[in-house]
Amino acid sequence: MATDSSVQVSVLGLGAMGSALAAALVKAGHETTVWNRSPGRADDLVAQGAVAAATATEAVAAGRVVIVCLFDHPSVHEVLDPLVDQLAGRVLVNVTTTSPAQSREIAAWAAGVSVEYLDGGIMAVPDMIGGPGSTILYSGSAEVFEQYRPLLDVWGESRYFGADPGLASLYDLALLSGMYVMFAGFLHGAAMLAPAGVPAREFASMAAPWLTAMAGHLDGLAAVVDGGDYAIPGQQSLEFSDLGDIVRASAEQGVSTEVIDMVQGLIQRQIDAGHAQEAFPRIYESIRQPG
Amino acid sequence: MATDSSVQVSVLGLGAMGSALAAALVKAGHETTVWNRSPGRADDLVAQGAVAAATATEAVAAGRVVIVCLFDHPSVHEVLDPLVDQLAGRVLVNVTTTSPAQSREIAAWAAGVSVEYLDGGIMAVPDMIGGPGSTILYSGSAEVFEQYRPLLDVWGESRYFGADPGLASLYDLALLSGMYVMFAGFLHGAAMLAPAGVPAREFASMAAPWLTAMAGHLDGLAAVVDGGDYAIPGQQSLEFSDLGDIVRASAEQGVSTEVIDMVQGLIQRQIDAGHAQEAFPRIYESIRQPG
Repeated sequence: MATDSSVQVSVLGLGAMGSALAAALVKAGHETTVWNRSPGRADDLVAQGAVAAATATEAVAAGRVVIVCLFDHPSVHEVLDPLVDQLAGRVLVNVTTTSPAQSREIAAWAAGVSVEYLDGGIMAVPDMIGGPGSTILYSGSAEVFEQYRPLLDVWGESRYFGADPGLASLYDLALLSGMYVMFAGFLHGAAMLAPAGVPAREFASMAAPWLTAMAGHLDGLAAVVDGGDYAIPGQQSLEFSDLGDIVRASAEQGVSTEVIDMVQGLIQRQIDAGHAQEAFPRIYESIRQPG
Repeated sequence: MATDSSVQVSVLGLGAMGSALAAALVKAGHETTVWNRSPGRADDLVAQGAVAAATATEAVAAGRVVIVCLFDHPSVHEVLDPLVDQLAGRVLVNVTTTSPAQSREIAAWAAGVSVEYLDGGIMAVPDMIGGPGSTILYSGSAEVFEQYRPLLDVWGESRYFGADPGLASLYDLALLSGMYVMFAGFLHGAAMLAPAGVPAREFASMAAPWLTAMAGHLDGLAAVVDGGDYAIPGQQSLEFSDLGDIVRASAEQGVSTEVIDMVQGLIQRQIDAGHAQEAFPRIYESIRQPG
């Protein structure tokens, strides 16, 4: 149902994420038009109350706000470049996963064709959209973010990081890095235990509360990094905790050591640079200054 | 104060962790004797009610249960090898960080000199001992674990994994792997954002709840690994999520890509092996089967 606060919004790209975004907009009462390059993806959304556009041109024409959730950066240009006339004067919210440089490029392109631009990074899987724990990161036009905040809030918690259109994407990729690397560390631990007959789910029952507790230490780790003084009294030194025991145990279990070798390599570079007596957060400097 | 359930216990090794373990025992009313190779570390504990032994021999003689919390595996032998006569018939609980193979070696040595052996791995920092969130992992003698459970529970939640004395250490190292790798992933994200002027603590305020939420997905990840079928409908394929965007953004920010290269390498080996359409948990197979 359309309400006084209803916005005419179009969603281009109906993969799992685009469909979830469109469904949430329909449910919130926005006049939602949807389009997908390959046909048949709109049927469920139409049943929920969306309007299916036959062409991208038609979809853009129907929306004051145009959401694009496409495959990648090139596909954004493939779809939008032919539509500059229709897009002029409208608002473009791009939640396609792109690099910061790609986001900045699209923002510059949008400015050149009189389109207001907001870049978004979705910190959720499609099932989470509109529910608890879903956070969407934005950067670019502050005016667009403020004006359409109620619409954006339909998808989850909205966070705005600043006018640099690449910042949301940078945050997005930084958080995803953290996730993928954490998952790799968990799977490494599971692989270490597997030869001893421990199922991965049994390890997960220990690892999930452990890593949750350790996530509580990230602020302290970050405070050391921001302070820049890694000579922390009472902390284990890099020399003492060089992870040799974990590397050896991994090898003894017959699993690849490359996951933990990565951390040990960051440690070793700091030891080699004369910081053997400093504490673990010092590995940040290995990452900031590529060897 | 000594009570009916008080145990004569000795703690060898008074680093930050050994001191925390001894302090918790004293506080719980156990008759606690302490010893450290270099002098002066026992003063605070004596003020709290512990007895300081002048020699390791004297310390072992005073304890029905002997806790060792030393620097590493060789130091355990350096301290205990000369004391086999005094140790015979006593209970040895070794919480020194050792590899599974080293734990098994010490257990075999203990059996040879008539010492009951329990191996422990401490999943806590010294400040956490005796408080919430402290978990100690044990393996080795089930009888020792059961008989002295009330004493062990003084330090935190006690978890027993089985008769193989290497299992607690293996679990310990697997969990520590998860922690160190998660920390490296967090620091990588912080390094990506630093050139944009984002302090690490600001990133931590986003990353801590994000990684906590993602820790909630470990059980699902583990279920896929245990099931062994990585062709998951609706999941992003390895080919789609090959982390190229994160690697590129990291390089654009001028930071080392080695943290995320590690995950991408695990993905690439599965793509090369013909599993491009399968989902992320498949990287487990890269770790289980070293390339």
